[in-house]
Amino acid sequence: MTTLQPTLRLFACGGTFDKRYDPLKGALVFTTSQLEAIVMRARLTVPVAVETLMQIDSLDMQPADRERILAACRSANEKSLVVVHGTDTMSDTAAVLGPQFDATSGKTIVLTGAMVPYAISQSDALFNLGFACACAQTLAPGVWIAMNGRWHAWNDVRKNREAGVFEPIGDCTGT
Amino acid sequence: MTTLQPTLRLFACGGTFDKRYDPLKGALVFTTSQLEAIVMRARLTVPVAVETLMQIDSLDMQPADRERILAACRSANEKSLVVVHGTDTMSDTAAVLGPQFDATSGKTIVLTGAMVPYAISQSDALFNLGFACACAQTLAPGVWIAMNGRWHAWNDVRKNREAGVFEPIGDCTGT
Amino acid sequence: MTTLQPTLRLFACGGTFDKRYDPLKGALVFTTSQLEAIVMRARLTVPVAVETLMQIDSLDMQPADRERILAACRSANEKSLVVVHGTDTMSDTAAVLGPQFDATSGKTIVLTGAMVPYAISQSDALFNLGFACACAQTLAPGVWIAMNGRWHAWNDVRKNREAGVFEPIGDCTGT
Amino acid sequence: MTTLQPTLRLFACGGTFDKRYDPLKGALVFTTSQLEAIVMRARLTVPVAVETLMQIDSLDMQPADRERILAACRSANEKSLVVVHGTDTMSDTAAVLGPQFDATSGKTIVLTGAMVPYAISQSDALFNLGFACACAQTLAPGVWIAMNGRWHAWNDVRKNREAGVFEPIGDCTGT
Repeated sequence: MTTLQPTLRLFACGGTFDKRYDPLKGALVFTTSQLEAIVMRARLTVPVAVETLMQIDSLDMQPADRERILAACRSANEKSLVVVHGTDTMSDTAAVLGPQFDATSGKTIVLTGAMVPYAISQSDALFNLGFACACAQTLAPGVWIAMNGRWHAWNDVRKNREAGVFEPIGDCTGT
Repeated sequence: MTTLQPTLRLFACGGTFDKRYDPLKGALVFTTSQLEAIVMRARLTVPVAVETLMQIDSLDMQPADRERILAACRSANEKSLVVVHGTDTMSDTAAVLGPQFDATSGKTIVLTGAMVPYAISQSDALFNLGFACACAQTLAPGVWIAMNGRWHAWNDVRKNREAGVFEPIGDCTGT
Repeated sequence: MTTLQPTLRLFACGGTFDKRYDPLKGALVFTTSQLEAIVMRARLTVPVAVETLMQIDSLDMQPADRERILAACRSANEKSLVVVHGTDTMSDTAAVLGPQFDATSGKTIVLTGAMVPYAISQSDALFNLGFACACAQTLAPGVWIAMNGRWHAWNDVRKNREAGVFEPIGDCTGT
Repeated sequence: MTTLQPTLRLFACGGTFDKRYDPLKGALVFTTSQLEAIVMRARLTVPVAVETLMQIDSLDMQPADRERILAACRSANEKSLVVVHGTDTMSDTAAVLGPQFDATSGKTIVLTGAMVPYAISQSDALFNLGFACACAQTLAPGVWIAMNGRWHAWNDVRKNREAGVFEPIGDCTGT
């Protein structure tokens, strides 16, 4: 195993987080990721790489897309990886990644996203990204989902679509 | 020792983070904290309490103010505490808290703040708060400063005023 | 004819201007109008009334909706009326109102809207509303469309969908 | 007299409108004007020129600064001029310009500004600029101040500092 850098890599995969408004179409669309601009805004001093893998709605993700995310996580030289992803199938992608990165992998992979696009008033994108960047540097190696100020193991999390939050499987209280 | 709740408490102490613009004075001032509104925006599901201790510039902080923050950290029942604080004397307050909360205290106290007020375009406040909320739940008991996507032990950190970032003491590269 | 007040009335009719993001639906929707909040933000001293007539996409407007707007303009006691409306059929509504309010009506009716919702980054809503509020107080009685820093007579204007701007009919350069 | 263009010129003179936050100084400062970016955001189709004359607080304006604004208004080839200016001495500058541009000058000069900087949440800058751009194209030649959804003749206006609004001289109700 190559020696991993104790630094951070952010993968942009689209999702609500990165949607923007197209005034001619009158709709939310994907163009380029806003992650690079956000990293400047956040005034990070930790070394950070930003890489766009795709810019799509997570409901449109195909198996090949998840394989691409898996391959990118494998080939990354950084110890701490954050995957910015749509919320609707975030746990599906986590379930693809989870079995491939155990404690011996040395990599902490954190999926996060947003319920309100970064470009829209009152977005949770910036808070979630900050939360995920800390989780990626502090949690044990493995695959996690970080949303709503909490983190979840990849195999014990689901999106509660009615409440618009992530919760442990079987946790009916949402807390 | 009483049993601590595995939950989060945020202390608002003012600082650049919470400054707002007063159109009549034409200046940045303190009124009420914006932390409650930010917690709603961040869509947290983790139980969280918000408490305003003071709303002042950290350059105006007196020893009695730091004692008040210390007392609040001591009396809190939560395991994870975030202190939103001005950046200019954040390490001074951390130095007051640090010796009082060791690993046996069971409490993880994270000081954070912002270089650009939450109310101003391109603020880093929301990212920093998300980052700090994760650190408070994942780092070992003790006192930490979390800024710029990094965390620092309370006794190994200073603000680099020329660069506007926090760095380990003696770390001249800023990284 | 009753004596008209030399004041301003704003009608909220929906359109892109007033769309908001629904995090559970993941879509732009209508709830309540944001016009009241905008009027506070704009720090108006001119007496102004705000009235919501409907909150719909202008592509969904039926003849009955335009009749309702016409009735509201007729019954208003103010000299200066601004209709906040979707851009796609703004000129259709203007064509319904236009023949009913000539120079002798004493009322200046200005339709405006936005290409980017008020709630989204880089919106043109606030500029357009300010522009329209001035036009409603300065232009001659009659019906006008005010967008893109220009005003147009109701019977000499169309939306150029490719460019996303309003232009005089037959003006192929869009100026 | 040369023939004036039926178009718009915006002069950036600083003032609260154009102040930005400097994270290293922890203060509101002037750098470059944001007017060019605002013109893009406003999606104008009317031909518009943007020219920065100065970027200063209007309390710091010297007679030479007002002479420079006067000279710029004189040499402009456009019929409609908007001067973005600090509010504290806006009426002083208007009083310098007023006697020089009567109805025969052919130029409509509108001074405007903001009570909250464009870069700060809940700013009135965009509304005021939209309002002023309409006034500059619709009002009679001469010098006007446009703020708070109203316009005032240059010799009948003052800033009410307690209320933070502009009002006619002698108008104690502020309306």
